[in-house]
Amino acid sequence: MKLIRKEDGAGGKYMMDFLRKHVISRFDSKAGEIALSELDDSSDFNGYAFTTDSYVVSPPVFPGGSIGSLAVCGTANDLAVMGAKPAVMSMSLIVQDGFSVETLDRILDDMAEWLEKIDAKIITGDTKVVEANIGIAVNTTGIGLRNEHLEKNLSIVREYRSYPYSWVRDRGLAEGDAVIITGNIAEHAAAIMASREGFGFELDVESDVYPVWLFLKNALETGGITAMKDPTRGGIAAALNEIAEKSGVGILIEEEKIPIRDDVKSFCDVLGLDPLMMANEGKVVMGVVADLAEEVLKALKKAGQKDAAIVGYATSEFREVVIETTIGTRKIMPPPTADPIPRVC
Amino acid sequence: MKLIRKEDGAGGKYMMDFLRKHVISRFDSKAGEIALSELDDSSDFNGYAFTTDSYVVSPPVFPGGSIGSLAVCGTANDLAVMGAKPAVMSMSLIVQDGFSVETLDRILDDMAEWLEKIDAKIITGDTKVVEANIGIAVNTTGIGLRNEHLEKNLSIVREYRSYPYSWVRDRGLAEGDAVIITGNIAEHAAAIMASREGFGFELDVESDVYPVWLFLKNALETGGITAMKDPTRGGIAAALNEIAEKSGVGILIEEEKIPIRDDVKSFCDVLGLDPLMMANEGKVVMGVVADLAEEVLKALKKAGQKDAAIVGYATSEFREVVIETTIGTRKIMPPPTADPIPRVC
Repeated sequence: MKLIRKEDGAGGKYMMDFLRKHVISRFDSKAGEIALSELDDSSDFNGYAFTTDSYVVSPPVFPGGSIGSLAVCGTANDLAVMGAKPAVMSMSLIVQDGFSVETLDRILDDMAEWLEKIDAKIITGDTKVVEANIGIAVNTTGIGLRNEHLEKNLSIVREYRSYPYSWVRDRGLAEGDAVIITGNIAEHAAAIMASREGFGFELDVESDVYPVWLFLKNALETGGITAMKDPTRGGIAAALNEIAEKSGVGILIEEEKIPIRDDVKSFCDVLGLDPLMMANEGKVVMGVVADLAEEVLKALKKAGQKDAAIVGYATSEFREVVIETTIGTRKIMPPPTADPIPRVC
Repeated sequence: MKLIRKEDGAGGKYMMDFLRKHVISRFDSKAGEIALSELDDSSDFNGYAFTTDSYVVSPPVFPGGSIGSLAVCGTANDLAVMGAKPAVMSMSLIVQDGFSVETLDRILDDMAEWLEKIDAKIITGDTKVVEANIGIAVNTTGIGLRNEHLEKNLSIVREYRSYPYSWVRDRGLAEGDAVIITGNIAEHAAAIMASREGFGFELDVESDVYPVWLFLKNALETGGITAMKDPTRGGIAAALNEIAEKSGVGILIEEEKIPIRDDVKSFCDVLGLDPLMMANEGKVVMGVVADLAEEVLKALKKAGQKDAAIVGYATSEFREVVIETTIGTRKIMPPPTADPIPRVC
C-alpha cells in the first residue's frame, strides 16, 4: 500500500511530483489568467487574487511571532508577491481538545495586530476541536486587490519589453534581469529550530515573519519588477529554481552577495543545514529589469529592508540556478527535494 | 490554566460563547453587508459571497461519501443558503504522514466529481504533511456569485414585505412565514455513527451529503424564501434556534411533520440520541412567505427533494423554538449546547 510521506508536503521537488500526480491531474482549472497547474503563489478570479495556506508550525508560539502571525502574513504574502494588495481573509481553526486558551488568545492577538497593520480583514471563519495531537492548525484564505502600484509596475516593465501577464508572475523573469533578495535569509527556520523544546542551542534570532506588502508597494511603485516569490518552505533554493524553471532561463547567483547574518550562518553550518534551503517568512526573491534594479533596491531600503541586495542575474547561458563562489568556482544550486525542517510553517 | 474543550468547536451554544469571547471580540469586521459577528453561513465582499470550513470527519470515507464530498458540498452549501451560486474554491490538505494514498485518491475523486456537478472549480491549493494523528483534514474556502435566481427570489419577497438584505439571510424570518425542511433529517450523523469501527450497529443509511444549490436554484426561482440555513453540526435544533433568535421571532414546529426515516429514528432512539440535534449535510431549513410555501415545496419536490415538508411557521407568540406533539402538548426545542457526535464533519 502506498503511503503519504513527509516529503509530499514539504515544498520541494517531491511535493511538486505529488501535486502533479494527485491534485493537478484532477483539478487543473482556472477562472482567470492563472491555472492551478501553474502553481503560482496565488490564483485569480474576476480580477481578484485568491490564495490559501494551512499553517501547522510547531511550536505554535516562537521567537518573533506565532502561528497567528504566520497565518496572516503568510497568506497576505502569497497575494503580495502577485502585486495584489491583501484585502480580506477567512480563518479556520483546528484546535486540539485541551489546547491552552491563553496560547490561543496570544495567537489571535497576533493575527489581529498584523491585520490592522496591513489594513486587511477577517470576515468569515470556522472552528473545529479535535482529539488528534495537532496542537493547532490555522487556515487562512485570502483575496487580494489590483491596485495602482501593481498597474504602475506593469506599465514600467512594458516600457522595456512585452510582459503578457496581468499580475507579477513567478514565470516572468527574462535574460538580463537582476535578481534581488529583500533581506537576510534563513531566519524563520533557524528561529523555529532554536526554539524547539529540548533542542538546547543558543541562537538569538527571531522569525522574520512580516507582511511583505508593506515594502513591496514601494518597490512596485518604483517599477520594473518582472517576477516574485516568497521563499518559504524550501528557502531561496526552491524559490529561485521555480522562477528559473518556469521562466525558462538560468540564474547566476554570487554567493557572497546573499544576505545572511553571521550567527545564523554558523548555526546552520554546525547543524549541517543549508541556509539556502531554509524557510523565510518576510522575504521576497524578485527579478527586476536590469536598468531599474538599483532604483528598486533603493526603494526597498527606504521601506526598511536595509539588507536587501542584488544577488545575481538571469541568463540564457544555462537553464539552472548556478552559484558562483568568491574564488570564481561555480556549482549548481539544486531545487531541494524536501524541507530539512518539518512543520516549519 | 483554561483549556479548549470539545464543545468550543461543536456548533452549539458553547461554541457561540467561545466565538464571541475569543474571535468576534478581536475580528468583528465586515467588508460588505454581513459582519463576522453575525455568524451567518457566508460573509460577503464586493458582491461575492465568501465562506470557509475545515472538515475533520472521522472516518474520512463513510457510506455515501467521504471528507472530499463534504469539503466540496459543505462549502458550496454555505454559499448556496445565502442564495449564492458556488463558483470557485481553494483546497488545503493537512495529511498525516503514512496516510493511505489510495484513500486520498478516493477523497480527491469525490471532490472532482461534485465540483463538476455544480460547475465550480478549485483554483488554488496547499498541502501540508504532519506527524499528528489527524488522518486528514481538508479546508475548502469558497466564493459564490449573485445570480438571477437570487435576484428573482428577493424581488418576489419584496412584493410581500420590506426585506433589507441583499442575500437570503438567516435573520430574515418574519411572523407568519412557513418553515420548510427539504428532506429527511439526521442521516449524515447516523451514517457516520454506524460506520465507525467497532460500533457494530446495523443501519443501512448513507450520508445525505449533496450540493443543495442543485435544488435551491429552483426554489429561489419560484421565490419567496426569506431565511435559510443548512443544518449541519447541531442539526435542525441548532439551525432553527439560530434563525429564530437572529430573526427575533418564535417558531412552532409540528413534530409529526419533521421528515425522518423510521429506521434512522429507531437507531437514534436505541442510542439515546436526539435526531433533531444530529448533523445533516444535504438539507436546508428555510423560511418562506406563507402564501408561497406550497409553490416552493412543489419546486423542491420537482427538483428531487421528495421528502421536503412544511413543518411549522414563525410566530410572535413566543421567542423560542417550540415543538408540538401529535397529542397537542408543547415543549421547547432548546439549542444544543454541543454536537452529540464528535468529528462528524
